[in-house]
Parts: sequence; C-alpha cells; structure tokens
Amino acid sequence: MNRIYADYDLETPGNLADTAAIIAGEQSSGTFMQLEGETDELKEAYGARIESIVETGAASKPSLPCRVAGRKFTRGRIRLSWSLANMGPSLPNVLATVAGNLFELREVSALRLLDVELPPEFAAAYPGPRAGIGGTRKLAGVPVGPLIGTIIKPSVGLDPLQTASLVSRLAEGGIDFLKDDELQANGPHCPFAERVKAVMKVLRDFADRTGKKPMYAFNITGGMDEMKRNADLVRDAGGTCVMVGIHSVGLPAVTALRQHTDLPIHGHRNGWGLFSRSPDIGISFIAWQKFWRIAGVDHLHVNGLRNKFSEDGTSSIASAGQCLTPLFDGDRDFRVMPVFSSGQSAEQVEDTYKALGSTDLIYCAGGGIMGHPHGPAGGIRSLREAWQAAVEGISLETYAVTHPDLRAAVETFRSRLS
Amino acid sequence: MNRIYADYDLETPGNLADTAAIIAGEQSSGTFMQLEGETDELKEAYGARIESIVETGAASKPSLPCRVAGRKFTRGRIRLSWSLANMGPSLPNVLATVAGNLFELREVSALRLLDVELPPEFAAAYPGPRAGIGGTRKLAGVPVGPLIGTIIKPSVGLDPLQTASLVSRLAEGGIDFLKDDELQANGPHCPFAERVKAVMKVLRDFADRTGKKPMYAFNITGGMDEMKRNADLVRDAGGTCVMVGIHSVGLPAVTALRQHTDLPIHGHRNGWGLFSRSPDIGISFIAWQKFWRIAGVDHLHVNGLRNKFSEDGTSSIASAGQCLTPLFDGDRDFRVMPVFSSGQSAEQVEDTYKALGSTDLIYCAGGGIMGHPHGPAGGIRSLREAWQAAVEGISLETYAVTHPDLRAAVETFRSRLS
Repeated sequence: MNRIYADYDLETPGNLADTAAIIAGEQSSGTFMQLEGETDELKEAYGARIESIVETGAASKPSLPCRVAGRKFTRGRIRLSWSLANMGPSLPNVLATVAGNLFELREVSALRLLDVELPPEFAAAYPGPRAGIGGTRKLAGVPVGPLIGTIIKPSVGLDPLQTASLVSRLAEGGIDFLKDDELQANGPHCPFAERVKAVMKVLRDFADRTGKKPMYAFNITGGMDEMKRNADLVRDAGGTCVMVGIHSVGLPAVTALRQHTDLPIHGHRNGWGLFSRSPDIGISFIAWQKFWRIAGVDHLHVNGLRNKFSEDGTSSIASAGQCLTPLFDGDRDFRVMPVFSSGQSAEQVEDTYKALGSTDLIYCAGGGIMGHPHGPAGGIRSLREAWQAAVEGISLETYAVTHPDLRAAVETFRSRLS
Repeated sequence: MNRIYADYDLETPGNLADTAAIIAGEQSSGTFMQLEGETDELKEAYGARIESIVETGAASKPSLPCRVAGRKFTRGRIRLSWSLANMGPSLPNVLATVAGNLFELREVSALRLLDVELPPEFAAAYPGPRAGIGGTRKLAGVPVGPLIGTIIKPSVGLDPLQTASLVSRLAEGGIDFLKDDELQANGPHCPFAERVKAVMKVLRDFADRTGKKPMYAFNITGGMDEMKRNADLVRDAGGTCVMVGIHSVGLPAVTALRQHTDLPIHGHRNGWGLFSRSPDIGISFIAWQKFWRIAGVDHLHVNGLRNKFSEDGTSSIASAGQCLTPLFDGDRDFRVMPVFSSGQSAEQVEDTYKALGSTDLIYCAGGGIMGHPHGPAGGIRSLREAWQAAVEGISLETYAVTHPDLRAAVETFRSRLS
C-alpha cells in the first residue's frame, strides 16, 4: 500500500536519530513502555518509518522552553513515512498523524512540519477544487490576466445597502472580484441574507447592462447547515462565489461544502500567523495548502510582496507558486488560484509578476484602490496598467509616464511600506 | 448589545497602547489608510475597544522574528472587546475576530490569546455538552469517583478481533472507560464498522453478564457524513461514546455532530502543542476549551501531572479546573469531564486529587495499566486504590502497605518520569 510522507525541521536536546525514533513511535504506538501486543511484524507494517535525517545545525540553548535538559540542541531535517493502511485517504486523520501529538513532545525543543506528500488515493477520495483557475476565470469573465479584486471596507459597520452602494461604485470602476472581509459574516448589524440580496441586485443589474458580472465572495463562515443554506442562497441570487475562513471551519466542513455546492470556495486563511509566525513551531504553508486544496477550496490567500504582516515576500511567492503547481498527475491536478492581498497596490505588481511568472491569480487591494487619488476607478485602472506593463516587460516607471492612473498610484503608494 | 472580551499577552517594538490600537483596528477596519466610510459613529459602534493595558516587562530583543526594528520590546496584558453585533453568537466568527489576523501583524513580536469571555447568547445559540459529567457517569455506570480508563495500544496495528480481545481483558479487569487511540480511526487495517461490531459484542455480552457496560470512545474523526453515519453505527450497536480529534474536525463539525447524536462526544486535542508550546505565540487552553465546550463536546483532554509531554502539571490542573467551572449561569452550565492521560499511573493520583479537589474526571493510563506487574486487572485496581486513598486523605505509601496492587504500582512507576 502507498505511503504518506512528512518532512520536519526538528531541534532536540538529544540526538536527531533517537528523537526521530521517539516521534515515529509516538505516532504509531505512543506509550512509555513496550507493550505485549507490539510485535516486530506489527511495527514493520504499521510503524512510522524514518526515511532520512540531515543535521543542519546546533545551539547551546533550546529554541522553545524544554523540560529535558541538554548542553547541545541539535537541529535537522527529518523525513518520516506511514503506510496509508494506518489511516486511509482521510485528511482529518492524516492531520492527526503528521501534526498530532508531536509538537509537545518533551524531547523536542523545536518542530515545524515543512511538507507532506500524499498519494493519488487522495485525488480519488476527495473532490478537490471544482472551479479552480479555469472555472473562476469563466465565472468572473476574465479570460486572461489577473482578477483585480478588493475587500469591502470598513470590514464591519456597513449595512447591506451601504455595502451594495460601495459594490456599485466598484463595479462601475471596473472591478473583477470583491469579497467580504473575514470579520463580516452573518452578524446582526449586517445580516447575510439581506447583504446577498442587496449586493446581488447591484451585480445582476450591472451584468444585464454590461455583460460582465464581477465575482463576489460572500463570507458564509458559520455553522455547517448555515453554510450550506447560505451557499444556496448565494447561488439562487445569481452569485458566483462563497468564502470561508478555513481555520474557523475545519477540513470536514470544507469538503462537505464542496460536495454541496458548485460555487467556487474562496479559502481565507485568517489566523494563519498562529501556524507560521514562529520559526520553531508550526506548519509551513507549503504543507498546509495541500490539505485545503484536496478538501476542496478553489482560492487560497497568500499575502503578497511588502505586505502589512510579518511574512516576507519570498514566502508569499513560494506559497502562490505551490497553489499553481499540480498536486496530482492527470486532469484533476487540484491547482487553485492564489489570492494576493494585504497592503497591495500597483507598486508591488512588477516584482510580483517577475517572481511568480504567472497571472493566474486574484490581486486584491483595499487602500490601493479606495485610496487612489483618482478614486476607485483610477485605482483599478492603475492595477490593470501595472499588470499590463509587467506582462509586456515594460518597467513601471516607463509605463507610468503615459498612464496617469498608474503614475498617481506609484507616487501615492511607493515607500508606504518597507 | 452584549460584548465579547479577549485577553492577550502582547510584546511589541512599539508601545503597548499604539499596538493595542493597531490590533483593535485590524480587527475592525483592517487597511493601511483611513477610509472614507470609516466614520466616528461607525467606529464607536463596531470598532474593537481597548478595555485595559498592563505593562508586564520589557526585553532588548524580540521574542519572535520581527520586521519592525526596535531597541526595546515591551510586554503586557491587553484586554479588548467587541460588540456582539459584529459577528453574532457564532463560534467560527468569534474565532476569526479574536484569533484571526493578529498573530502575524508586523508590529507584534509575541502574541498569545489568554482568555475569552462570551456572553449568554452563546448558551442560547449552541447545544453545549449533552451528556456532560452526569450523563457520562450514568452511561458508564460510575456514580462516584473517577472513571478509570485506558487507550487501546498499540494505537495502530491491531485488527478488529485483536482489539475486541484486548477490550475483553480490560473489561474483565474492571475498566470503566476505553478509547481508540487518536491514530486509529477508519483505516484499511482496522475498519471502523468491523471494530465497532467486534468490540460492542464483547461489551454487550459483558454487560449482560455483569450489569456494567464500560464506555468505549470510538474514534469517528473523518468526513462530516462519515462521522454522523459512524455515530449512528455506534449507537445502534449499543455503544455509549464517540471521539473526535477537535483540531482535525473543526468547530462547525463538532456542533453538527452534537446536533446529530445524543452520545457523549469525547474531545481529543491532539495537535494541541501547536497552540501551546511556544510562550510567544498561540492560544491558552483556558480560552480554547470554552470554544469546544460551547460547540458541544462532553470530555476534553488535559494531559496530567508528570506527563510525557512538555506541558507542566500546573497547566494541566488549571485546564481541568476550567472544564469543571461553569461557563454560564443556570442549569446549562456547560461543564465537561476533563480527561487525564499521558504517562499516568497510580503514582500521580494523590497529587492530582490534592491539586484538583474533584473526582469528576476520566483518568486514563496506558502503560500504567498494561505494564502493571499483576496484569491489567492489577493496574486498574491500583488506580482505584490510589483514588480511594486520595479521597480518604490517606497517603499513597500508607495505603500501599495493605494494598498489594497499589504497592506494586508505586514500586514500578515511581520515578519513571521526572
């Protein structure tokens, strides 16, 4: 039977081989003494296997508080594997295996899950993204180039009619994609059903008039039945996308939603800092995004260059690159659209395109659109112009000379963030 | 409208008040420039409010890598609040608010969510634990004292008949509670339906003969429909408990399961180290357990004294104490049973009882039962005797003199763990 693989960055007061064996043991027998039923045959068939160990460094102090004393804390990369017979192609149970009771082991002074490799049985067992890149482009009416997007702000406080009024302005300004803020779901101050009704009236009217219906990702994050009901409500109103906070809803809910609705699922990763912020504990997005793609999201947030968070641009680009990399061979390759956001404006576009080499993405700007000196329409034009320049290999400065919206964006937003 | 409150431990290269304001802003307007719709009235009604700031220390270096330079990194406790009008009584959306895009803010060099306070609207909106402490006691036939429990080990590898055979031995030995390991769910090597069939035949026969049916927490962690189906399967076979890995399944799935089944839900927190291990990032279990209790679990894991993980005993006892503390006024107080486990034996019982002052708990031992010199029955007796001594205020040593199973346990397990 096929195996699943997991790579870790590990630090330990012991030696790497012993600690790797402890982790492997904890994830296959897990008690503090040899048990009578724990035969060699059983261990061979179902025990976690240590595939490789590479030492990468050492320090005199533990990176995380550690109850096991030591004078030397050795760091390295380890690769473990498990038979699929242990858990079957089940994401929640793979998670319990590769990211279960390991982080808190006393023999570990740092542990990060760097990557996972899941066999093709997962492609067969799970729906994966339904719309993906092609489906999203079709629904949004954007056959080439990035989807230029924005987030409704202020994130909380606007009522349904105020939201719809802002949507109208942005649609007139040429926006391709809009989304609720992750803080805006179904609260009493802006009930979901009323928001959908008001916003979709605007977007349907706009589409009737222009032939283009911008995609709006309605945040349905909530209870299981509530999410299904609200996805139906969006579809029935002519909507084309729903959004969930992946960490708020969990893997089984995303899959259940995927099986319930044909709409693209916009995967917001708010709370991601908890997994990513420390170099000594957590899960790399390289590993994490695979779970959510298999579960069924179509879009995944990746921050962006020079964002307002602590993630550096290299990491954002690597995450986006992974979203665009097939997970499995064949037609169902589970590629999804990376979503750039957080402090983005025309200013970062050239570097983003150079680093990523693709326009299969959603490029969201908040202040970069609403704060543009020529208004939202100018902000949206400045972003399209920046992408046009990038794709044609013309520098931002050169293109800005003949494009006043782009020029204004460069002057306004450059050097705002380091 | 009522408010929700959250307490944080924060470190910043800036000053605490400014950074608290940035966090509050990010969680209510969230862009890098003042927007036109962001009026003072709107901010007053829907903006997060800073309730208090208490400086606790300072350091010359950031605790986490930080993109904002500084010479002094100030640490403190901050308390924020939000109107319930923002998100309504919805756990997934509260999570996006109190533990969303905060951890990765560049102005933050450490951030932990310490506690949350949720108003009574949550008791009305959510099912909470159905069986709780009383229901669990009734189903397990243990009116007083702790439920003595164990985990089927090896965690993976035993087939359904081997599992049932071990269950039979443990039932004969007097066990109150058994559970699947978190690595054992519905894998090809031990299919769930076959395991339930084999195990429940043993337990039904035992109950017919003795009048006591030990509670077995079957690990149903999996897809949404799969969990519901498997909970029904357990119920139909006469089973009395199901288990989920809370981090594997997420809040909406726990609530959906709670609404679907009357069986107690045993909440395993494998993967908890990711939230708890670093003092500089994460969520305290004091905050975290509230979410899962409201969502609907009946039991929650808390480790235990001198466990094999990195959590210290004080933290385990505090977690257990919280599980036994009412969340809301009135009959539906959402108390749940704490589950002690990890390297537990008769050795830790006296100290556990002294620290907690309650026997409303499940006390799980693996090696502490299976590795007892007198076999599993001796191990189980040693645990009952240790609790009897603790409750009667007799020292372990004194009680051991006249109780050979307890004496053997003390000799075998003492000093195994520091």
